Amino acid sequence: MDLTSFVRPLAAVATAAARLLSRQTRLRLRANAEGLVVSGNDRDLAVQLSCPATTHLDGEVVVPAAPFAETVRMLDVDQVRLAVEGTRLAIRTDSARFALPVLDRDLLHVPEPPPLLSKVDGTALAAALRTVAGTAAKDDPLPVFTGVRVQSIGDELCLTASDRYRMAVARLPLQEVRDPIDVLVPATLLTEAARHSAGAMGLHADPSHFALSWRGGTVTTAVLDAGFLSADSIPSDAVDTEVEVGADELAAAIRRVGVYSEDRRVLTLEVGDAHLRLASARQDTGEAEEHLKANVCGGRTSPSFQARYLLDALAPFSGERIRLAIQPGLRACVLTPADEDGREVALKYYLMPMLPR
Amino acid sequence: MDLTSFVRPLAAVATAAARLLSRQTRLRLRANAEGLVVSGNDRDLAVQLSCPATTHLDGEVVVPAAPFAETVRMLDVDQVRLAVEGTRLAIRTDSARFALPVLDRDLLHVPEPPPLLSKVDGTALAAALRTVAGTAAKDDPLPVFTGVRVQSIGDELCLTASDRYRMAVARLPLQEVRDPIDVLVPATLLTEAARHSAGAMGLHADPSHFALSWRGGTVTTAVLDAGFLSADSIPSDAVDTEVEVGADELAAAIRRVGVYSEDRRVLTLEVGDAHLRLASARQDTGEAEEHLKANVCGGRTSPSFQARYLLDALAPFSGERIRLAIQPGLRACVLTPADEDGREVALKYYLMPMLPR
Repeated sequence: MDLTSFVRPLAAVATAAARLLSRQTRLRLRANAEGLVVSGNDRDLAVQLSCPATTHLDGEVVVPAAPFAETVRMLDVDQVRLAVEGTRLAIRTDSARFALPVLDRDLLHVPEPPPLLSKVDGTALAAALRTVAGTAAKDDPLPVFTGVRVQSIGDELCLTASDRYRMAVARLPLQEVRDPIDVLVPATLLTEAARHSAGAMGLHADPSHFALSWRGGTVTTAVLDAGFLSADSIPSDAVDTEVEVGADELAAAIRRVGVYSEDRRVLTLEVGDAHLRLASARQDTGEAEEHLKANVCGGRTSPSFQARYLLDALAPFSGERIRLAIQPGLRACVLTPADEDGREVALKYYLMPMLPR
Repeated sequence: MDLTSFVRPLAAVATAAARLLSRQTRLRLRANAEGLVVSGNDRDLAVQLSCPATTHLDGEVVVPAAPFAETVRMLDVDQVRLAVEGTRLAIRTDSARFALPVLDRDLLHVPEPPPLLSKVDGTALAAALRTVAGTAAKDDPLPVFTGVRVQSIGDELCLTASDRYRMAVARLPLQEVRDPIDVLVPATLLTEAARHSAGAMGLHADPSHFALSWRGGTVTTAVLDAGFLSADSIPSDAVDTEVEVGADELAAAIRRVGVYSEDRRVLTLEVGDAHLRLASARQDTGEAEEHLKANVCGGRTSPSFQARYLLDALAPFSGERIRLAIQPGLRACVLTPADEDGREVALKYYLMPMLPR
C-alpha cells in the first residue's frame, strides 16, 4: 500500500474511528483507486469511514488505532504519505517519518451492516438525540434504561429513552421508508454516531444489529435485548393544570433559589393564578423566594421535582416558552414547547414529581 | 445597612472574594457614601474589594461568603438592593427576595496591608507570573519550592520560582521605588491576585506580610519563611552550544515524536550542524524521527529532557524563536527569546536535563 492524502480529512476519519472504538483496537486501512477506507471493530461495534486519497499502490494494512490517530491528528502539514515499508506502515512528511508496526490482518473482521430500512435527516436526528439519549441512564443493570428505542411509526421516526425518573420522546419525519424498524440501541453510541452527518442518514437493522450510514461512513452496533419503553401509559386527559412559562427564565430562577434549598435537591413549583412561585429555606444559608409570570390554566397545584432533573428537562427548550402539563398525584409532568409550529423534531419530556416534604 | 448596586460589579467583587478565600469563610459588607467595601479573611489571607453603590443607610454586616457570591452571580437583572431586615441580609430584585443570616461581626478581623514599597504595571506582572508561578511546585514539603521570590533589584522587579527541575526568572520595570523588597510569596495566591488589575499595582511588604493593591482592592498574605532561590549559581560562560529554533515548531514536533517514546517521558534533542533531530522508538507502537531547521552555534550535543517540562518551558515563548543555551553535563539548559528587544518582561527559563538512557 502506498498513498498520498490530505491531512485534514484523514485526521478527521482516524480521530472518529479511534473515538468510537476502544483505544486498544486496531484499524484496517484499505487503499484503491477510489481512495482510502479506514475500518475497525470492537466487541459489539464496527466502524467504516472513507477518506479521499491518491493511491500509488493498492493494498491493505492493519495498524494500532491510537498511535495512528494521534500522529495524524497532530501533523501540521497539508499532505502526508502512507506507505508500507517492510513490517512497518510509514507516515511520512517532508521533515518527519513515523513508523507503526503492521499487525496480523486476520485478527480483524469488520462485518457488513444489516439491510437499509429507512432514511432520516442527520441534523434533526442529532438534535433529537441530544435530549433523548441524555435521559437514558449512563449505567444501569437493566439494559432497557441505557438504550434508545428507535421505532418507525408510519412516516415518522420515534425515539424514546428513560432512566425511570424522566423520559423523553422525540418524533421526526422519515425521508424514505422501506421497512418498519423497532430496535433498542445503546444511547452513548447513537449520540456519537449521529454527529457525523448533516445530510441523509441511513437506518439499517436486522433482529440483532443496528447501523447508521452516511456518505463516507457506517457504524454498526449490536442491539440491546430488552423490553421496550412506551409513552402510551400516560393518558393526556388526566392533566390537571397547564402552565406556560419561559424555559430560560424558569431555569435561571431554579438555579438561584436552589442555592437556598436543603442539599439543593428538591424544589416545589407553586402554581398561582398567573404566576409560578419558587421558594426554599435552609437553616444555615437563609431563605429565598422568586415569582415568575406565567399563563396558568386549570387548578392550583404544587408539584415538587429534583432540581437537577428539572434543569435537564428545560435545557432542550432553551429560548422558547414551554407548556407544563401537570397531572394529579405522583404522575409524570409533561413538558412540551408552547408553540409546536415549524419544528422538525417534536419533543415531549416526561418528568416524575417527588413526594412533597 | 441599605443600598442599591449594579449587579455586574457587585458580582465581580463577590466572586473574586469568594475565590480568593476558602468557601467556608464570611464576608464583611460595609456601606457608606463612597460605596460598598467587601472584605474577608482566611487563615493567612485578607481581601478587601470595593464596588460602586448608592447607599441609603450606612452600615456594616457579616454574611456567609459562598451563598452571597453565588446568588449575586446568578442574578439576571441590572440592579439589586441589599438591606438588613432584622437578623437577615435581604438581597432583593423586583420579583425575588433572597435572605442570608447576619453573622457575628466580632469574629471577622481584616488586617490592614503592610506599607507600600513599590509599584509595577499589572499587565506585565500578570504575564510574568503566568510563567514564573507555573514553575513553582504545587505541593512540596519545603515552602521555598511553592513560593515566588519577589525581589527588587535597582529599578527592576525580579520574580523567581523553581520546583528543583526547572526555574523561571522574569524581570520587569518597577514604576515607583520607595524601599527595596525581598519576600517569598505563595505562588498560587500571587497568580490569582495579579489578575485583578491592568493598571498600576502597589507592592507592600513587612517582614511577615506581603500585599498587592490596586484601584478598588487589596490582597494581603503571610509570607513564606524560607531560604531564597537564586539564579546566580549558573554562570553563563559555561555554555557549550547555542541553538535558535521556533518555539511552536519545536513544541509540535515534541508532541508528535513523544507518542512513540517509552512512557512518553524522556526525549533527546540531537543538535546537528543546522538542525535539531528528535527521535524515539517503542517496541509496540513503532518509531518516529523528525528534523527541525535551527541555527546552531558551538559543538554537537544531545541533551535529554522530560518531554512535559520541555513543553512547559516552550509555552511562554509561543509565537517566537527561542535561544537554547546548552551547558555540558547535567547542568541547566537556559531558554531565552532569540530577540529580546521591545519586551517589557525579560524571561529566562532554566531546565534540568535528564540522564541519557
